[in-house]
Amino acid sequence: MVRFMKKISNKSGLPPGTLVHVGEKKSEQVRIRVLDYDEGHLEERDPAGIDECFVYKDKPTVSWINMDGLHQVDLIENIGKCFDLHPLILEDILNTTQRPKLQDLEDYICLILKMITYDETINQLHIEQVTLILGSNFVISFQETEGDVFDTVRDRLRKGKGKIRKMGADYLAYALLDAVVDNYFIVLEKIGEEIESLEDELLENPGPETVNGIHSLKRELIFLRKSVWPLREAIVGLEKGESSLIQDKTAIYLRDVYDHTIQVIDTIETYRDMVSGMLDVYLSSLSNKMNEVMKMLTIIATIFIPLTFLAGIYGMNFENMPEIGWPWSYPMLWAVMISVVLFMLSYFRKKKWL
Amino acid sequence: MVRFMKKISNKSGLPPGTLVHVGEKKSEQVRIRVLDYDEGHLEERDPAGIDECFVYKDKPTVSWINMDGLHQVDLIENIGKCFDLHPLILEDILNTTQRPKLQDLEDYICLILKMITYDETINQLHIEQVTLILGSNFVISFQETEGDVFDTVRDRLRKGKGKIRKMGADYLAYALLDAVVDNYFIVLEKIGEEIESLEDELLENPGPETVNGIHSLKRELIFLRKSVWPLREAIVGLEKGESSLIQDKTAIYLRDVYDHTIQVIDTIETYRDMVSGMLDVYLSSLSNKMNEVMKMLTIIATIFIPLTFLAGIYGMNFENMPEIGWPWSYPMLWAVMISVVLFMLSYFRKKKWL
Amino acid sequence: MVRFMKKISNKSGLPPGTLVHVGEKKSEQVRIRVLDYDEGHLEERDPAGIDECFVYKDKPTVSWINMDGLHQVDLIENIGKCFDLHPLILEDILNTTQRPKLQDLEDYICLILKMITYDETINQLHIEQVTLILGSNFVISFQETEGDVFDTVRDRLRKGKGKIRKMGADYLAYALLDAVVDNYFIVLEKIGEEIESLEDELLENPGPETVNGIHSLKRELIFLRKSVWPLREAIVGLEKGESSLIQDKTAIYLRDVYDHTIQVIDTIETYRDMVSGMLDVYLSSLSNKMNEVMKMLTIIATIFIPLTFLAGIYGMNFENMPEIGWPWSYPMLWAVMISVVLFMLSYFRKKKWL
Amino acid sequence: MVRFMKKISNKSGLPPGTLVHVGEKKSEQVRIRVLDYDEGHLEERDPAGIDECFVYKDKPTVSWINMDGLHQVDLIENIGKCFDLHPLILEDILNTTQRPKLQDLEDYICLILKMITYDETINQLHIEQVTLILGSNFVISFQETEGDVFDTVRDRLRKGKGKIRKMGADYLAYALLDAVVDNYFIVLEKIGEEIESLEDELLENPGPETVNGIHSLKRELIFLRKSVWPLREAIVGLEKGESSLIQDKTAIYLRDVYDHTIQVIDTIETYRDMVSGMLDVYLSSLSNKMNEVMKMLTIIATIFIPLTFLAGIYGMNFENMPEIGWPWSYPMLWAVMISVVLFMLSYFRKKKWL
Amino acid sequence: MVRFMKKISNKSGLPPGTLVHVGEKKSEQVRIRVLDYDEGHLEERDPAGIDECFVYKDKPTVSWINMDGLHQVDLIENIGKCFDLHPLILEDILNTTQRPKLQDLEDYICLILKMITYDETINQLHIEQVTLILGSNFVISFQETEGDVFDTVRDRLRKGKGKIRKMGADYLAYALLDAVVDNYFIVLEKIGEEIESLEDELLENPGPETVNGIHSLKRELIFLRKSVWPLREAIVGLEKGESSLIQDKTAIYLRDVYDHTIQVIDTIETYRDMVSGMLDVYLSSLSNKMNEVMKMLTIIATIFIPLTFLAGIYGMNFENMPEIGWPWSYPMLWAVMISVVLFMLSYFRKKKWL
Repeated sequence: MVRFMKKISNKSGLPPGTLVHVGEKKSEQVRIRVLDYDEGHLEERDPAGIDECFVYKDKPTVSWINMDGLHQVDLIENIGKCFDLHPLILEDILNTTQRPKLQDLEDYICLILKMITYDETINQLHIEQVTLILGSNFVISFQETEGDVFDTVRDRLRKGKGKIRKMGADYLAYALLDAVVDNYFIVLEKIGEEIESLEDELLENPGPETVNGIHSLKRELIFLRKSVWPLREAIVGLEKGESSLIQDKTAIYLRDVYDHTIQVIDTIETYRDMVSGMLDVYLSSLSNKMNEVMKMLTIIATIFIPLTFLAGIYGMNFENMPEIGWPWSYPMLWAVMISVVLFMLSYFRKKKWL
Repeated sequence: MVRFMKKISNKSGLPPGTLVHVGEKKSEQVRIRVLDYDEGHLEERDPAGIDECFVYKDKPTVSWINMDGLHQVDLIENIGKCFDLHPLILEDILNTTQRPKLQDLEDYICLILKMITYDETINQLHIEQVTLILGSNFVISFQETEGDVFDTVRDRLRKGKGKIRKMGADYLAYALLDAVVDNYFIVLEKIGEEIESLEDELLENPGPETVNGIHSLKRELIFLRKSVWPLREAIVGLEKGESSLIQDKTAIYLRDVYDHTIQVIDTIETYRDMVSGMLDVYLSSLSNKMNEVMKMLTIIATIFIPLTFLAGIYGMNFENMPEIGWPWSYPMLWAVMISVVLFMLSYFRKKKWL
Repeated sequence: MVRFMKKISNKSGLPPGTLVHVGEKKSEQVRIRVLDYDEGHLEERDPAGIDECFVYKDKPTVSWINMDGLHQVDLIENIGKCFDLHPLILEDILNTTQRPKLQDLEDYICLILKMITYDETINQLHIEQVTLILGSNFVISFQETEGDVFDTVRDRLRKGKGKIRKMGADYLAYALLDAVVDNYFIVLEKIGEEIESLEDELLENPGPETVNGIHSLKRELIFLRKSVWPLREAIVGLEKGESSLIQDKTAIYLRDVYDHTIQVIDTIETYRDMVSGMLDVYLSSLSNKMNEVMKMLTIIATIFIPLTFLAGIYGMNFENMPEIGWPWSYPMLWAVMISVVLFMLSYFRKKKWL
Repeated sequence: MVRFMKKISNKSGLPPGTLVHVGEKKSEQVRIRVLDYDEGHLEERDPAGIDECFVYKDKPTVSWINMDGLHQVDLIENIGKCFDLHPLILEDILNTTQRPKLQDLEDYICLILKMITYDETINQLHIEQVTLILGSNFVISFQETEGDVFDTVRDRLRKGKGKIRKMGADYLAYALLDAVVDNYFIVLEKIGEEIESLEDELLENPGPETVNGIHSLKRELIFLRKSVWPLREAIVGLEKGESSLIQDKTAIYLRDVYDHTIQVIDTIETYRDMVSGMLDVYLSSLSNKMNEVMKMLTIIATIFIPLTFLAGIYGMNFENMPEIGWPWSYPMLWAVMISVVLFMLSYFRKKKWL
Repeated sequence: MVRFMKKISNKSGLPPGTLVHVGEKKSEQVRIRVLDYDEGHLEERDPAGIDECFVYKDKPTVSWINMDGLHQVDLIENIGKCFDLHPLILEDILNTTQRPKLQDLEDYICLILKMITYDETINQLHIEQVTLILGSNFVISFQETEGDVFDTVRDRLRKGKGKIRKMGADYLAYALLDAVVDNYFIVLEKIGEEIESLEDELLENPGPETVNGIHSLKRELIFLRKSVWPLREAIVGLEKGESSLIQDKTAIYLRDVYDHTIQVIDTIETYRDMVSGMLDVYLSSLSNKMNEVMKMLTIIATIFIPLTFLAGIYGMNFENMPEIGWPWSYPMLWAVMISVVLFMLSYFRKKKWL
């Protein structure tokens, strides 16, 4: 089961802006990677300390600082100081229970979103918080673990594929956002496959574990929905907002990623409808089976109970039972019994129980 | 079962604007057809190559370029280059998992919609993506397969019926859109017939296959809804948008097709309500049947179990059973038994079980 | 069952504005009636041909042209030509599957609505399309059959009751609209009576036919809703729209008919809630009955099966059964049996099964 | 059961503004009471005829004319003429099936609302229509019966408590409105008590009458909702509307009564949620009981049916049954039977049926 | 069970602004605490009487007056007079059944909200009303009982942690609001734990008490929702409202607490979805168990009832039963019986009942 509520109570009561990491410590070590580029050059390095990143703040080239692992609070604090981030923003970065949201602070934009992957080893969704800070010439991204979703962006930067090297920091932020949203489709595909296999199970051989399957699918969809739904609004804010950090020519790309998000939400809703329908089918198949079992019992009991009664009658030991002595009474009783059976069978056939 | 999720994961991670065909290859060969007309003349041809289409870009007459089959990515790319289409638009044309949407890029408008047909051989909905590109004097339409829905428009053009030849490219785009929406009504009619036949089955002889019928109807309606619902918004955008590509006199026609779309959506919602109601009726008919079966069993068991007990009593072999020897005890037992039966029957009649 | 989907597929593919009558031919012959009036005079006649109506177009008096029966397409076409109606409007008049809507074409307003009557002979709703065309000094009304709903308006005109003769064509259109909406209340009353009688049946003697009653009520409400809901928006358009055809002093009357429509919709929603509740009550009464039946069976079986077993024991023929020969064993067995019965009864009483 | 639909069909077809009383005649006689006051003086009287009220129209003091009983149509008509009320307003006053609504006619405001009381003798809601007409210096209130809800306002006026005597007619209208809304809380309390007692019944001893209780609660809530929900909008209209009849200093009081209305609606929704939940609990308790009954039956039947069979075997009269003659076969059979019973009991215990 | 409706009927009919305490008297004694501070100094005291508070009204430093216990109406009245609070505001403070709301009266802002705690001794939610009055340089807070939620704010003030001492009264009001909202997360965590433990129970050993658990969770969520949902709107009013009492630099903090409220609402909705799903799982597990019980009964009955009948046949005492005398008939009957059993078993295995 997805742990759906992280411990954040230990944070309650602290003054706003107090930096506490809320969430599991998912990676052993914090890893920082820097990519600095413009159309002509590309510099890539893993700085030893956080101080090495500070030069990128005012460099005219586009810089992408990526940090994997959030548990070293002092690193985050240092970055915050250097790049002039508001304490509430730093708090949000560290608190991994945030819902996706956009905060526009004029000098920079903070976008919180959820990276979702499907862990096939344990058949579970894995939800991780990603924060993007977009400044005029830098993007800082924070991840809980070292993921591979951003590798494709890194590759495109290295190889200069597409126009990513020719565009500004806003396009880089878009590319990272797009990589996350694209990943949702992979998760949806997995869930779609799960739904199909449950459907087959439902039609062929439904059992109690089918309900559990439906139930856990339902829950996964609830969590997916909760993680994706607010993103829609955040992207609208990015596209429609009048931040000078977003250039006009990037808007069409944001519109595209917005369309993808809508499509993800649409598909989640469709899946929810389908999964609800499956429960109805399961319950009615249960009722059907019960009906069949009960008919079986009723047919057997209705045929044999009266016959047993008849046999019981002539098993009595009364001295004065004239039928006992008659020579044809035994075959006649058989005749009566057989006609009772035949009558019952035709009655059941008429009732369409057979 | 409708395959509801196409494989698009292999596309994830590519830079935006990368052209990859997402969807099944539904037609063997790409077929291009061109219709160029104004009020006075009409030219129709199947160009051998895509290059022959390029002359139509700047011709003052209205040109309709129709392409059936999307799997030849280079063709689409060539068209895109010639007609100055944005890479994201080309990507949308090729990705057949799009939801209906409208994109207004000033020089041209791109409308993505879903053609829905009902394949009677396999009793299934068939959903196909159609993209319309409307420029100032041309319309380019992309279909996944060679369909016959646009043939009526082609006919009207050839014969000069109605005012289609006197109007501009925007009217042609409307005519194509209208042809697609009109087709929805045919699909709805089929589904209406399915609902009626399921209703009859439900009232006369409901069985497990009725639930499956209801379930698959429900799912079809979910997919129809998903395909049509966003179209509403797209048409509003077309009608209310201030694109200079749409002339004022075309607006009333767009309003008309908008009304049709609303009617389609309305009917889908009505069908959904009706189908939900059918499941309730089915489940209560199951419960009714179960009740009837149980009453049958209970009546038989309640009458005969006590009688069998009585017969069992006098089947015992105790030496000291005075009743055994009395001459009237056998007929008296019969009298007792018959009165028990009569009492039971009147009791059941009072309870309205009989 | 209400036929809920009329055949409109044969219309698909035709150019917009093509006039085809969609719907059953409900009346034998088309009947045209004209009422021309102002405060001082009233002229009423049944013109032989449609041409006689054309003089009313420019007469300063208010003219009401009423046409019952839509199957003579050429008549509609002629009227359209004379009164300058847009081909799409004529198409809408003939297509009786339209949802209620308002179209304001500056020179005239077209209002499509649904006349609903309750046919008591077959206990069914009867839904018919009515179209009103309001010009500056004329109203043209189209009905599918000759109805009597407009007779009250005709009467008021003849007798000069109320202020209808003093007001313009917009008030006449309001009066017709009001007559249709007033009629909805009669239909709601009938449905209210049906609900009450079903309620009584539900509390006293629910059976399978009760579900069918609930189901058909539900369906009727679905159709009513579909027919009335869009009217709300249409009347708002009429009231709030800035058409010069609607005079200021008529607005308060439109507000009144709007309030009535809201009340109709409200009542429909209330009925839907009530009918849903009835199904729940029915299902729980089924479960209750089943419980009662099962308790009966269980009590009888639990009492007599052990007794029959005991009797079976002493019916065995073993030679070495010492109890058989004891003189008190038969009465003792009876004592045992009676105490088993008493114990069982007290147990069931404790369980509140008796 | 609440009669939920009053006969209004006899009104249909009449011209708008025709005065017909729709509703039961709830009071024997119409009673008119007048209260005329300003800060310094207070005059209270029961005028013999309606004509005596007319002097209050232009008096500078605030006048409150209260009329209990609506069935004397001519009285209403006279008031209407004197105070210049629009015929549609008079119609609304008389038609007691109106939903709450606000009509602002510049010279006066008409507010229709529902007075709801809980009749404890028959445990039912009693819904009555109240109409308030607010002019610049008068309030006319129409009630169906002589109620005591307005008595508190009358008292405050007489005693000069609060600031009611210092404020204008708008504050008086507010005070009457507030008295009606305050009364809703009393009704909600009663319903809350009903819900709690049903809850107790549900947990301790649910039976068929519990469902009926839930069902009638549900219905009461449907009616309450229908009566209160539209009031919200009406009060917003009063508060936000720019009528010169409402003074600025009264607005905060209207805001207060608006908040109360929202709270009433909120509570109704909460109750609806709770009552829905109760039905689920009831149904699952039914299923639980059924399960228990079935287990009982199955345990008894499964233990004794095989034993009875064994006894039946040795009750057979075959001549060649060697076991019959063996001396130890009778005790051995007992041993077998007892071990079968023990095995069954341990099996049931393992299955957690015991 | 949470008492969900407090007695407020005794308040009905009183003039608006009449001060009556509605709610339980939850604390023995009213306790007043004052904290007066600016960046440089801090004064803390428990004034003996209410009059000592009045000096803080016009002091330039920020003053926080906290009152625990609402049952001494005259105290509230005195405060109201001193700080010029509107009678309706005082009424709201005393009426603890208010829903969260914001009232902006220019000179001061009144925010009513709900403090929610989870009482672990009785496993219940405890909901208490908190009112904050924000003036230009003071905050007055009213609580029903002496809570410890505000202690963290008090501590931060004393220690000068964070920037609370440097900011104005609006920041203090924010800090108190934030403390309340932070507390909601603790309550949600408890409920999350309850849900998880119910989930485990549901999968391992569901019983009637599981339904009660689900039911009481559902109800708790209904109350939570009712208490938190309106707060959202109130905070929006605070943030977006143009009150001069809220400084620009506080807005970002209000936005933060708004985000937290949305997250609380989101989580409540998610929990509701999850709890609804649990009921479905429970009901289907009940049906499954019933199916299993019925199969057991049917298998036993279907096997042994026919066998018992056969044994009954040969227990009859007819004189003319030739089989009785045949030497092999007894073993043959056994053979028949065994084959019947084997056939039945294989039949049940085929039906997948075994």
